[in-house]
Amino acid sequence: MRVTPLDVVETLKDRRCVHILIHENPDGDCIGAGYALASALQQIGVKVVVKCSDPIPEKFEFLIPKLNYVPERVKPDIVVTVDMADAKMLGTYFDDYSYRIGLCIDHHVSNKNYAYRLCLDTKASSACEIIYDVVKVMQIRDMIEITEEIAKCIYVGMETDTGCFRYSNTSPKTLRVASELLELLDREYIANINHHIFVEKSFSQIRLEAMLAKTVKIYRDYNCTISVLTNKMIEENNFSKSDYAGLANFPMQFEKTKIGIFMKEVEPNVFKISMRSVSDINVSEICQQFGGGGHAKAAGCRIIGYENDIIKSLLDAIAEQA
Amino acid sequence: MRVTPLDVVETLKDRRCVHILIHENPDGDCIGAGYALASALQQIGVKVVVKCSDPIPEKFEFLIPKLNYVPERVKPDIVVTVDMADAKMLGTYFDDYSYRIGLCIDHHVSNKNYAYRLCLDTKASSACEIIYDVVKVMQIRDMIEITEEIAKCIYVGMETDTGCFRYSNTSPKTLRVASELLELLDREYIANINHHIFVEKSFSQIRLEAMLAKTVKIYRDYNCTISVLTNKMIEENNFSKSDYAGLANFPMQFEKTKIGIFMKEVEPNVFKISMRSVSDINVSEICQQFGGGGHAKAAGCRIIGYENDIIKSLLDAIAEQA
Repeated sequence: MRVTPLDVVETLKDRRCVHILIHENPDGDCIGAGYALASALQQIGVKVVVKCSDPIPEKFEFLIPKLNYVPERVKPDIVVTVDMADAKMLGTYFDDYSYRIGLCIDHHVSNKNYAYRLCLDTKASSACEIIYDVVKVMQIRDMIEITEEIAKCIYVGMETDTGCFRYSNTSPKTLRVASELLELLDREYIANINHHIFVEKSFSQIRLEAMLAKTVKIYRDYNCTISVLTNKMIEENNFSKSDYAGLANFPMQFEKTKIGIFMKEVEPNVFKISMRSVSDINVSEICQQFGGGGHAKAAGCRIIGYENDIIKSLLDAIAEQA
Repeated sequence: MRVTPLDVVETLKDRRCVHILIHENPDGDCIGAGYALASALQQIGVKVVVKCSDPIPEKFEFLIPKLNYVPERVKPDIVVTVDMADAKMLGTYFDDYSYRIGLCIDHHVSNKNYAYRLCLDTKASSACEIIYDVVKVMQIRDMIEITEEIAKCIYVGMETDTGCFRYSNTSPKTLRVASELLELLDREYIANINHHIFVEKSFSQIRLEAMLAKTVKIYRDYNCTISVLTNKMIEENNFSKSDYAGLANFPMQFEKTKIGIFMKEVEPNVFKISMRSVSDINVSEICQQFGGGGHAKAAGCRIIGYENDIIKSLLDAIAEQA
């Protein structure tokens, strides 16, 4: 059943306890969206728990608001997912929750419609932009105040999904909402956070990027740049997950690149592929051919095979789309 | 004489010919501001010429609107500067124009008040944000239409001065204006431009950055990171101006950096210093001690001396401010 942000408020406002599930490998958008909704619901007396199969990355820990402790014995009377296109992204929570998702709030075209109610806005830049509509309804009805805590979650979530308002999913509405939220925030604080999220890098990250810059593969005929990070490179240099977590956009910086591909070996001959596009080519469609998905400009998949065979398959798929 | 955006319209609307001067080493803000104003004035029949002591960088050429040819013999009845804190920034046009500047439109705290009329808004993120107020007055009075051409100039100018809405000079108004302008623009086109301005790098730029990453000087006690680019490095590696033009922010990316300094040797033992801050330390005040200036978070100066002596002087100045 498709529902609106207004219905979301109606659905949640009289609950005793809500569990909010955000996707595995959480990013700024699902963290911001999950915790903004949690903070708003707590204001109206709903007990709320936010759950994620993976830990919240250190750089987004500042988004976590102070939520009241809810004892294990208090069971949820509704389960909500945010920013989750597919119940598979529940990760380790799949068995516990996937069969009983009462509401999904999402912005992915590829949403699998797995929840009883679906609040989907594919024009929204981010799940946070939809959560804004939800909390705005609650504010207009004098149910809640949009606090600095809520504003921060939504603002930072929108920023992370739009590359700080750089990508084409940034709409006039995105910027209008951001303007309204920034009224509630300290600009110096936000600028420091932006620096931390979008600029600052660790030494080993910078060292890793210098290494990748030397081994990058440029396919001029395909306007495509590919960086491959193998387990051998990681082991020999003692790189850790936080060093390569943000590298999906790395190949895009090379001049004249229209499609950037970052390939990370996860197991011997199993690669996690991140594709980015600054052209008309829809990388979500390409990734779907390999069992993955995402957005037109940013998508991903997992492919089993030898590095060179995978690259050949990907280039073939790009050639077909072009 | 201090004037408002309304006065700016009154001052310019009945002129026969206006010369708009933008500062040497032009950036997205002065280019956008100069050409947006030019395009608006041309709509009301004013002959207008935009002049700059240096060529417009290739990456901002798309901002230049089609302006009607104005023959040399048509002399300006007013000279306007935009985004120019000091008449010295006229560069090679100093002798021709500095004694007769009828209006300066600027947002720098350090403005030297060198023009007959000064429209200064130090709260504006950019000169473009003030030009928006000017063209908005003209639009409300039905004098002009805010065209896609004008919107593009102002949007991109605001973006370049705010690091794509990342810095603390981004205000709620900045985002509200951006939202309004984005209604007039193609989002895919803007995203491609953002990619081109903020992400894409040439191979030699990437090679230069990898080299600087190896030679960077970290002063932990001062939370300061310094990169030095000498003429020797440039000559030995055949780097060109466009390779190092955007490096002022380079040192900021190193973790825990609060002050980033980029030193570029311009002549033997003469260094152009670019300082950036993500702390309370006002780098404009530090640069003023060395005869320079700018904003609290981004400033510059020129210092004569040996590299190590200059670094010592700069660190001493930082210690005094801290």
